[in-house]
Amino acid sequence: MNNGRFARESCKIIRSSEGATTIDINDVFRYLERDLCAVERALASNIKSAAPLIPVVGKHITMSGGKRIRPALLLLCSDACGYRGPRRIVMSVVTEYIHTATLLHDDVVDMGTVRRGKPSANMVFGNSVSILVGDFLFARASQLMIDDGDINVHKIYAKAVVSVTEGEVLQLTKTRDGGITEKQYFDVICRKTASLIAAASETGAALAGADQRIRKALSGYGRCVGMAFQLVDDILDYAGTEKKLGKRPFQDLREGKITLPLLHALQNVSAVERKRAQKVLAEKERGERDIAFLAGLVDRNGGKEYTASRADDFIRRGKRYLLELPASEARDALAVLSDYMVSRTS
Amino acid sequence: MNNGRFARESCKIIRSSEGATTIDINDVFRYLERDLCAVERALASNIKSAAPLIPVVGKHITMSGGKRIRPALLLLCSDACGYRGPRRIVMSVVTEYIHTATLLHDDVVDMGTVRRGKPSANMVFGNSVSILVGDFLFARASQLMIDDGDINVHKIYAKAVVSVTEGEVLQLTKTRDGGITEKQYFDVICRKTASLIAAASETGAALAGADQRIRKALSGYGRCVGMAFQLVDDILDYAGTEKKLGKRPFQDLREGKITLPLLHALQNVSAVERKRAQKVLAEKERGERDIAFLAGLVDRNGGKEYTASRADDFIRRGKRYLLELPASEARDALAVLSDYMVSRTS
Repeated sequence: MNNGRFARESCKIIRSSEGATTIDINDVFRYLERDLCAVERALASNIKSAAPLIPVVGKHITMSGGKRIRPALLLLCSDACGYRGPRRIVMSVVTEYIHTATLLHDDVVDMGTVRRGKPSANMVFGNSVSILVGDFLFARASQLMIDDGDINVHKIYAKAVVSVTEGEVLQLTKTRDGGITEKQYFDVICRKTASLIAAASETGAALAGADQRIRKALSGYGRCVGMAFQLVDDILDYAGTEKKLGKRPFQDLREGKITLPLLHALQNVSAVERKRAQKVLAEKERGERDIAFLAGLVDRNGGKEYTASRADDFIRRGKRYLLELPASEARDALAVLSDYMVSRTS
Repeated sequence: MNNGRFARESCKIIRSSEGATTIDINDVFRYLERDLCAVERALASNIKSAAPLIPVVGKHITMSGGKRIRPALLLLCSDACGYRGPRRIVMSVVTEYIHTATLLHDDVVDMGTVRRGKPSANMVFGNSVSILVGDFLFARASQLMIDDGDINVHKIYAKAVVSVTEGEVLQLTKTRDGGITEKQYFDVICRKTASLIAAASETGAALAGADQRIRKALSGYGRCVGMAFQLVDDILDYAGTEKKLGKRPFQDLREGKITLPLLHALQNVSAVERKRAQKVLAEKERGERDIAFLAGLVDRNGGKEYTASRADDFIRRGKRYLLELPASEARDALAVLSDYMVSRTS
C-alpha cells in the first residue's frame, strides 16, 4: 500500500538538528515523514468503492510515486500557522485526489501514454475508465470535505477546480495557435496548475484559523510556487530525456501546446523563421523534423534560460509572502521546498 | 436563451381548475411553468466562465430540449413538503448541471454520436472539450451548493455523484458479459440513473426542512421512478426508431450493454441460442446480422413486456411512498409525473 515516495522510508519524525537556515530538502522530507505516511495510508483507505475496479485504477495512479508536493505544502503551511491536527491529513488527501482526477482526465485529453515512467492509466485501463475514475475521485474529495464540515475550505477547492477546468479549456482553445501571448500563457498556467497549489497552501492557513492576511499570503505563496513549478515543467519538456522525465520529451510540441520557452523564442526569431514556425504549429501533426526545427529555435533564442529566470522570479515573489508568517521551522521548510520545486530535473 | 422544453411557452402559472385526481401531464407542466422558466434562466446565467468556449458547449447540451424531469421532480417534491422558495431553483440547476456533466462524459465513454436528435457535444466539440466542460459543470454545481450553504443537501449530491460514477464503472466492467445477473443489472441502473433522481427528490424534502421519514419516503419515490425511467429507456432502445428516439436504436447492443430486455430473453432461450448469443455478445463488435439475431431473441421471448412490467412495479412502489405526504396538488402532480415517465416514447 505504501508505495509513495515518502512512505518507502520508515514512519518516524526526525527533526533536523541543524539550525533553521541550514536545512535542506532531505531534512524537509524527514520532518514531514510521519505526516506523509499518514497521507499515504489515508489515500489508500478512502478509495474503497462498490466498484472493485475503482481502487485498482486509483492505486495505479495515486501510488505510482508522485512527489506529493501539494500535501507537503499543505502540511507545512498549516504547521507554519500553528495547526498540526488530523484535518491536515484529510485535506492532503482531498488535494491529492483532485490532482489525481485532473491527471486522469488530462491523459485522456492529451492522449498521454506514459506518466511517471509507467504506462498511463488510459493506456492500461482505457479512456472510459480514466474518465469515470477521475469523476469518482472528484466526488470522493467532495465527500471528504463535507464530512470535514468546513464550508470555507470547501469553497477554496470548488473555486480551484473551476479554475483548473477553465485553464485546461483555455489551453485547448489556444492549441496550435502561434499567436498566443505571454499574458494568455500565464493565465492558462495560473489556472491549470497554480490554482490548486494555491488552494492547498491557503487551506493550510484556513485549518489553523489564520486571519485573512495570512490566508492571502499563503495563497499568494502557493500561486507563485505553482507558476514556477509549471514553468520548470515546461522547460523540462525541452530539456529532459525520456528516462529522466518518465515521459517523452517534446510532448508539448507534439500536442501543439505552445509554452513559454517557445513563446519567448518566437518573439526573437526572424520574420521568415516565425512564419515557418507558425505554419508548422498550425498543422494537425508535426513530424520529427518539425519538432527539431522548433526545438532548435528554443535553443538558439534562450527560451529555456528566459523561462528559468521567470521561474526564479516567481520563487522570489513566493518567498516574500512567507515573511508575513512568524519565523518557524515550517516556514524555513517552505522556503526550501520552493527552491526544490524549481531545481527538480524530473 | 430559453430554448428548453418548457421555456418556449410563456412564463406564467396556470393552475389546473380541475380536481386533483383528474389532472394530466399537461396540467403538471403548466403548474410548473413559471418555476421551470426560472430554472432555464438560471441554467444559462450560471454557466458564465473565463473560458468563452464553456458556455457555448454548456448551452449546446443544457439547452437542447432536455425534459427537465429532475428539476420537475425536485420542484414538486419541495412544493409537496411545503417549500416554494428560491433555493428550489438553485438546487434544480445543481441537479441539471450534474446530470449534464454525466451526459457529456457518457457520450465520450460510449462514443455517442447523437443526443436528443442532434450531434452530441463530443461530435461537435471533440472528446477533450466534453470531458473538461463536464468537469467544469460538476465544479460549478459544487460552488452553487456551497453558496447555498446547506451541508445536508451537499451531502445528498456528493453521495449521488459517487454512486453514479460507481454505476458507470460497474456497467463498463459488465460490458459484453453475457453472464450479468438481474441483480447486478438492477444495481447498475440504481446507481447510474436512479441515485441522482432520488437525490433530486430527497432534496425537495430537505429544502422544506421535512423530517427523516419524509426525506426517506421521497428518496424512495425518486429511486423507484428513476429505476422505471431507466427500464423504459432500455426498452426504447429495442422499440424505437431513430426519428423518435433522437438516437440510433439498438445502441446498447452495439456497445455490448446487456440490459433487462435481453437479460430476460437470455433466461428463456434454448441452450443453443444462449451459447450463440453469449458468443456474439463477447465479440468486440457486432454486425447488423448479430444485432438482428439478438433483437429477435428479445422479441420472441417477451423481453420488452417483462421489462415494462418491472417498470410498472417500480412506479407502483414509488407512488406508495407518496402516501407518506399530506394530500396536495403537488403530490398528485408527482403521481402523474411518474406515470408520464413510463409512458414516454422518446
